[in-house]
Order: sequence, then structure tokens, then C-alpha cells
Amino acid sequence: MDSYSEFLYDRVNLHSGFAVHNGMKITHISKDRVVGEMPITPESLNPLGLVHGGCLAALADSVAGTAVYVHGRVCVTLNCSFNYLRPASGTLIRCVGTVQKLGSTIAVCDVVLTDDQDQAVASGCFTFFRKEEYAPGFPPPAPESERAQAPV
Amino acid sequence: MDSYSEFLYDRVNLHSGFAVHNGMKITHISKDRVVGEMPITPESLNPLGLVHGGCLAALADSVAGTAVYVHGRVCVTLNCSFNYLRPASGTLIRCVGTVQKLGSTIAVCDVVLTDDQDQAVASGCFTFFRKEEYAPGFPPPAPESERAQAPV
Amino acid sequence: MDSYSEFLYDRVNLHSGFAVHNGMKITHISKDRVVGEMPITPESLNPLGLVHGGCLAALADSVAGTAVYVHGRVCVTLNCSFNYLRPASGTLIRCVGTVQKLGSTIAVCDVVLTDDQDQAVASGCFTFFRKEEYAPGFPPPAPESERAQAPV
Amino acid sequence: MDSYSEFLYDRVNLHSGFAVHNGMKITHISKDRVVGEMPITPESLNPLGLVHGGCLAALADSVAGTAVYVHGRVCVTLNCSFNYLRPASGTLIRCVGTVQKLGSTIAVCDVVLTDDQDQAVASGCFTFFRKEEYAPGFPPPAPESERAQAPV
Repeated sequence: MDSYSEFLYDRVNLHSGFAVHNGMKITHISKDRVVGEMPITPESLNPLGLVHGGCLAALADSVAGTAVYVHGRVCVTLNCSFNYLRPASGTLIRCVGTVQKLGSTIAVCDVVLTDDQDQAVASGCFTFFRKEEYAPGFPPPAPESERAQAPV
Repeated sequence: MDSYSEFLYDRVNLHSGFAVHNGMKITHISKDRVVGEMPITPESLNPLGLVHGGCLAALADSVAGTAVYVHGRVCVTLNCSFNYLRPASGTLIRCVGTVQKLGSTIAVCDVVLTDDQDQAVASGCFTFFRKEEYAPGFPPPAPESERAQAPV
Repeated sequence: MDSYSEFLYDRVNLHSGFAVHNGMKITHISKDRVVGEMPITPESLNPLGLVHGGCLAALADSVAGTAVYVHGRVCVTLNCSFNYLRPASGTLIRCVGTVQKLGSTIAVCDVVLTDDQDQAVASGCFTFFRKEEYAPGFPPPAPESERAQAPV
Repeated sequence: MDSYSEFLYDRVNLHSGFAVHNGMKITHISKDRVVGEMPITPESLNPLGLVHGGCLAALADSVAGTAVYVHGRVCVTLNCSFNYLRPASGTLIRCVGTVQKLGSTIAVCDVVLTDDQDQAVASGCFTFFRKEEYAPGFPPPAPESERAQAPV
């Protein structure tokens, strides 16, 4: 795992107070697809005993944000739309994020959330503003051999 | 406070595992307007040190759901749209929910979230499906005198 | 083509004043997927000379509604979210609608709109309320042989 | 009426092929609020004889875009969310747009659409990207007397 991937995992899994507090974890990162998971516990539930809608939206936000960060710039969420397709229960929620548009300042990421039975419980779409600053460690420094050959 | 209002406060403030775990609280309930609050703690933050977008959406969902429950039927969220207007920081987030439509099966609730300085940090709109079953304690039982007079 | 399919095509292509006035046409109908098209003319454009955002959203609404009507009940749009991914120009817009959820009262349909070059110019999600009444001609009458055998 | 206001009215009322073709008109422009109208004709209707959802969304897009243009930069719609609150019929639809956020690159505008009876038939929220280029005639040239005094 390169240092930028490590940074991306740690960003949510260690440095997002809210994600850590709610057991959300990024489990897979690639250019095309980011996956996150969250165990269902009593602390995830609404008064009806189902997973709280806000909890699903929050996992989705972390996954979608990571999917855009993969491409190297700091980003902030502008807005989202979110559909609840089926009551969510069981032991685990899984969220897959796929970048649909990667513009120079605007990125759009679709998410689908599934339960233990692999049934879609929610889906949504997040729009991000990509800032001009690069995320730490990105783009990665050129390997030393290349740097040696670079014109001064 | 009548018993149905008490039920509505307890529903979120005691019986929503997710809301309790994240310090969310309903603080005002009336027919026209529900207010909720959440202190900003390290457990509310994203990796940039700002309030996590999902945390704001989750508070809004609890407030909007309560605003529809006030009118007496069990409801579930169908979908939402949510806009982030300004980075959220400080010590407290406040959310006001106002029912915009109350149909026999569909309800729509607008929300606005503000920070310590009373600046809008986010806004959104939640759509709910109102089930046929009534929430516990609603409609309230008729006073005893009326019941005595009721035809058998 | 059975009479219900015919009804579905005519519904938009002949009996929707707005769709006809704007050149929108349903071109393919199946259980899983509905396709619609619209030629780009001077009457489709915004002041920048690109396809008007509302024009794209309108085509999508007609396609998504048809995709839900296919399953046999009258439906009305509750809400939608819509993303503009790229400026739309060229000679034709094509919209594909796919039903993501078909509940007894609520249906959700995703749409993707593409241009001449098959590039996605917009995408969105529509939520519908399915009424109890059936669309004309649906469910189709049983074939005569079956009806003959039916108990009186 | 100054020349920039004139430009803003003409932009939709003369130079938007789609708006003109569908009878949409901007009727009031101020810094805080833009109003547009559309007569209901057979060409505005869906197959149920109500105003087509896409027609309402299209009017709203023109109004919201104008409300952001008022502040002087060219803008394009990023996305929208839109709620249908009540079947729309009668003779006229009116749409009021109010800018909720005006950032250096992102603007958010709320819209409410009402019918003849002043009942809300739909509401929504549009997000725009504000380009760096200024709209023609904005900012207005300084009056000649000031220009005369300007340092060379």
C-alpha cells in the first residue's frame, strides 16, 4: 500500500471523530470504487429499531468523499440527495461509492448501500467542490531515480 | 406537557440509540415547528475538523421526523435533499423543522441548521411516508367526562 | 404490440401536451427499461445556446413516469433530484429510465441522459406515488379461452 | 430600468428559446427576489391534464438562474431537488426565487411555485456554479464624470 492510500484510509478510519465514534470504516480504495462498512449496533438505530436514516447518510458521505479524495484534491460536500429503499436491519451495512463526474472543480459520486443479504437499502448522489490545494502526499513525489535525472 | 408530547421527546431523546449516542436532542415541539440541538464535540467532526456532513443530516432527519410525528401517525423517511451552505464549527448546532406539506400519506418537512452565531450552515428537505397506524398515545383518549357520556 | 404498450406510447407521444409541444417521444418500452428521445432545436435552448436544464428534466420526468406506469398503476411524481454533468448540445438527447424500487405505493426510477456522442449529460432520480387505480387496459383482460373456463 | 436589468429580462424573455417556446416570462427582478410566470395552456399539460412536472421544474430553473445572474456573473446549474406538493391546474403558475447562498463560486437558490389561488404547488432548491466571467454589461461602467477623474 502506497503512502497516499494509507493516508486515505487513516483519514476516515482514524482521523474522522464522527466516523470512528459510529464504527464506520473504509475497507477498499481504488481509482474507480471505494467501499465502506459499518456494523449495526444499538447505537445505529432509530426509535423503530431500524438503522437511523442519518446514520446511512453519514456512512455514504464518508465513502463518497473518499472516492473523490482518491483523485488527489481536498474536497468538501456541496449537497446530496438520498433515497431510502427498504428498512435496514441485520448486522452490517456496506456502501459502495462510484465517481460519476470528475471535473476540475466539481465532482459527483453515486452511492449504493446494501445489507447482509446484499439487498439495496438506500442510494444517493453527492456533489463535491474540489479545492485547489492538494491532499497531503498527493501527487506522490517522483521516485528517486527519476528525480535524479530531472533537469535542475 | 401532555402524554403525547412526552412520548415525542422520549422517542428521540431516550429511544433513538443513534441520536442518544451522538448527543442529539429534541428541545422544542409544537404543531408548527420542532427544534433539535447537538453539541459539537470531537465525536461530531470530520477529518478537516469541521462538523461531519452526515452528522448534520442525521440531526435534521431526527428533527424532521419528529415534526411529522407531531401530527399523529407513524412515519418513515422516503428521501431527502440536503445543502451544505457554510463550514460548521463552534459549540452547538441547532436545527428547526417546519412541515411544508401534510398529506394523508405523504409529508414534506423543510429544515434549517444554524451555528452559535445563528448563521445557516445547512438546509434541506425530507419527504416521509405516513403509515396508517397511529403513534402510541395518539389521538389522545377523550377526557373521562366525555367518555362517560359516550353511547355504548 | 399489445394494447397496453400502445396506450403507454400514446400517453406521452400523443396525449401529453407538453411532451408533444417540445418534441419529446417515448421510443422503447419494456418491463426493465424505458427510453425516450428529444431532438435539439432552437426551442430547446437556454440563453447560452445549450439545452435548457428544465428541458432535460422534463424529458426525464416523462421517461421515468412511463417506466413506472409499465407496471400498471396510475402514478404521480412526488419529487426528483437531478444532476447536470456536462453542457448538452448536438442534435439529439436520449434518456434511459430504470426502475430501482417498485413498492406497493412508492416507486423510484433512475434516469441517465446522453448526447449524440453517447456521453452522459445529466442523471437523476424520480420518486413516484402509485395510486390504487389501474391504468386503462391494465391488467389486461384474460384471453377468451381462459375467461370461458372461469367459474361464474 | 438600467441596462443590466434590461439584459436580464431579455435573456430569458427573448433569448431563451425554450422559455419563449413555453410561454415562460421573468416579471420581476431585484437583488433579493426574482419572479417568473407561465400561463397554463394545453401545451403545459401532462396526460392526466395537470401541469407537467417538467414544465414546473423548467420555469423554476429559469427563475433561479436569473436570481443568481442578478449578482453579475455567468452561472450554470449544477443540480436541483424539486418537490411536487399539490396537483397544479388553473390559468397561471408563478415562481418566486430567493438566493439562499451567494459564494464566490457556488450559489444556492430556493424556489416556490404557486397557482392562481396562491397555493404552493411545488418547491425546490437549485445549486449553481458561478463562472469567473462577468455577464455582459456587468459591473456597469462608471458614469462618465467618474471616468474622467480616474487616474490614467
